[in-house]
Amino acid sequence: MERILTGDRVTGKLHLGHYVGSLKKRVELQHRMETFLLLADVQALTTHFQDPDLVRRHLRLVALDYLAAGIDPEKAVLCVQSLIPEIAELTVFYSMFVTVSSLRHNPTTKSEAEQRGYDDLYYGFLGYPVSQAADITFCKATLVPVGDDQIPHIEQTRKIVRRFNSLYRPVFEEPRALVGDTSRLIGLDGNGKMSKSLGNGIELDASAEEVREKLKKAKTDPSRIRKDDPGHPGICPVFTYHEAFLAEEAPEIRESCERGSIGCTACKEKLAEGLNALLEPMRERRAHYGAKPAEVDEILQSGTARARGIGRETMREVREAMGIDYFGR
Amino acid sequence: MERILTGDRVTGKLHLGHYVGSLKKRVELQHRMETFLLLADVQALTTHFQDPDLVRRHLRLVALDYLAAGIDPEKAVLCVQSLIPEIAELTVFYSMFVTVSSLRHNPTTKSEAEQRGYDDLYYGFLGYPVSQAADITFCKATLVPVGDDQIPHIEQTRKIVRRFNSLYRPVFEEPRALVGDTSRLIGLDGNGKMSKSLGNGIELDASAEEVREKLKKAKTDPSRIRKDDPGHPGICPVFTYHEAFLAEEAPEIRESCERGSIGCTACKEKLAEGLNALLEPMRERRAHYGAKPAEVDEILQSGTARARGIGRETMREVREAMGIDYFGR
Repeated sequence: MERILTGDRVTGKLHLGHYVGSLKKRVELQHRMETFLLLADVQALTTHFQDPDLVRRHLRLVALDYLAAGIDPEKAVLCVQSLIPEIAELTVFYSMFVTVSSLRHNPTTKSEAEQRGYDDLYYGFLGYPVSQAADITFCKATLVPVGDDQIPHIEQTRKIVRRFNSLYRPVFEEPRALVGDTSRLIGLDGNGKMSKSLGNGIELDASAEEVREKLKKAKTDPSRIRKDDPGHPGICPVFTYHEAFLAEEAPEIRESCERGSIGCTACKEKLAEGLNALLEPMRERRAHYGAKPAEVDEILQSGTARARGIGRETMREVREAMGIDYFGR
Repeated sequence: MERILTGDRVTGKLHLGHYVGSLKKRVELQHRMETFLLLADVQALTTHFQDPDLVRRHLRLVALDYLAAGIDPEKAVLCVQSLIPEIAELTVFYSMFVTVSSLRHNPTTKSEAEQRGYDDLYYGFLGYPVSQAADITFCKATLVPVGDDQIPHIEQTRKIVRRFNSLYRPVFEEPRALVGDTSRLIGLDGNGKMSKSLGNGIELDASAEEVREKLKKAKTDPSRIRKDDPGHPGICPVFTYHEAFLAEEAPEIRESCERGSIGCTACKEKLAEGLNALLEPMRERRAHYGAKPAEVDEILQSGTARARGIGRETMREVREAMGIDYFGR
């Protein structure tokens, strides 16, 4: 069976964009593949080291998002990055043979560094791809579901794995990227993708009322003034949600919009209904787990323990391959 | 009581230069201070990742050198770096808030990079000072015996400690450098300091015969042709050894040399005798431990276990200070 490693930096609650982009897929995959879901608090700290409280809070919020979305703790292993020292150990070992220049030229690192306006990179931030390689390999994942912007990172992991295997002994399989339908959900404001930092999203924990209110303010086709003007779904953010979440009804909505037979208000109400139907079971599961924080902690702790067991076994093989297993088992 | 962290990269056997430069001092200090002796195999791999066999072999050879030199495993904690994951964890945490430019400008890193002719730095090599900070702080050492070329590294550790303490909560005391008499022993060839890579040294495991043979070939005052020519001890490598190892007799040797009343051969024989008197008890201890590899392994394993216990306690405090002690103890 393939083993998947996936997860999120715990810097914010998850929203509909995350659901469409990755979470929905993970919920499906957990039944077919051995799934490791890493709550990446160390990588969250890489950019938020000045605000560990934010990371602390979001660890459990993101765990709740996972469970609410349908991740089954009996199937998927939910584990906490900072509690798996084997990831840090692998990061240190891989650091030895990865050049600074290959890290500097990693396109994602490059553009994020420019975007964030760091006048100077932090050492840990520069090493992001090394630490991702450690995430993926500590549990010997063979498949990594990613967006297409993450492909260079997986490529770097594959390079690191090849280098390790050829320097020492083949311990790791080269992991492959499982590139999803990269449909990035557009934001409610129509400006770029739905994103926590732009505040243009609907979070997975939104109430039915919030969903309706947020949709009311969502941007639509700007050329449509009166409700019986013919609309242009192709440029309407709201219509992209119909397509993403209510695919079956979308053709009908498109037609009604183009004909001018459905107004934006009614169209948004239909969407709100559909989204709430999707979110309702999540709300129930969230209420269940939200009322039992000790159960969530237990899920994270036992998942982490399971991940560590696998990590320890990996490190045993790594040490043996490198010939630094001085005292045997 | 002060706690000391010191150690060596396990890339080669120790020689007389190490003894004079650090080992002798450590043997004294172990009685007055809590001494941690780190066998730095991870840092050895930073430059020797292509040759882990060399590191593997030297781990035990260096341990034998320590024990032979008089390190008392009942007093000093001998521990193996790669078996202390807490060091890797701290390295990862510190990496977040150390800038690449501060590492690039570290004078030692800079000059070593130039010296070794790396056309491109490795990421782990660049991070050497971060990993040293982790070495020093995992056991909360307060004093670090160093040569003066290592002062910038300690300065960087102090900076990292200040930054950690102010970002989160004061967990660490700023360690201080304990700068020894920086007497670097000159090599037998008179060219620069005694060094493994130049092959111009006398190793601590040299036999009495080897000591005599090596000294026979040692460079002396080149202007002295006949044995009754007046000599110039100030430019004679052999005389520096008299000063370093037989300080009491050195003034007499100086006078005899300047008067031309002792020839180089006799002078070297005197030195050989003195060095062998120093090395003889080391040979006995080496023979003792050399015959009992299981005892040496046990020393390393129990020292490492003790170090790990302290490292775990440090990490507990670190996690608590950062607020990422999610599940308590």
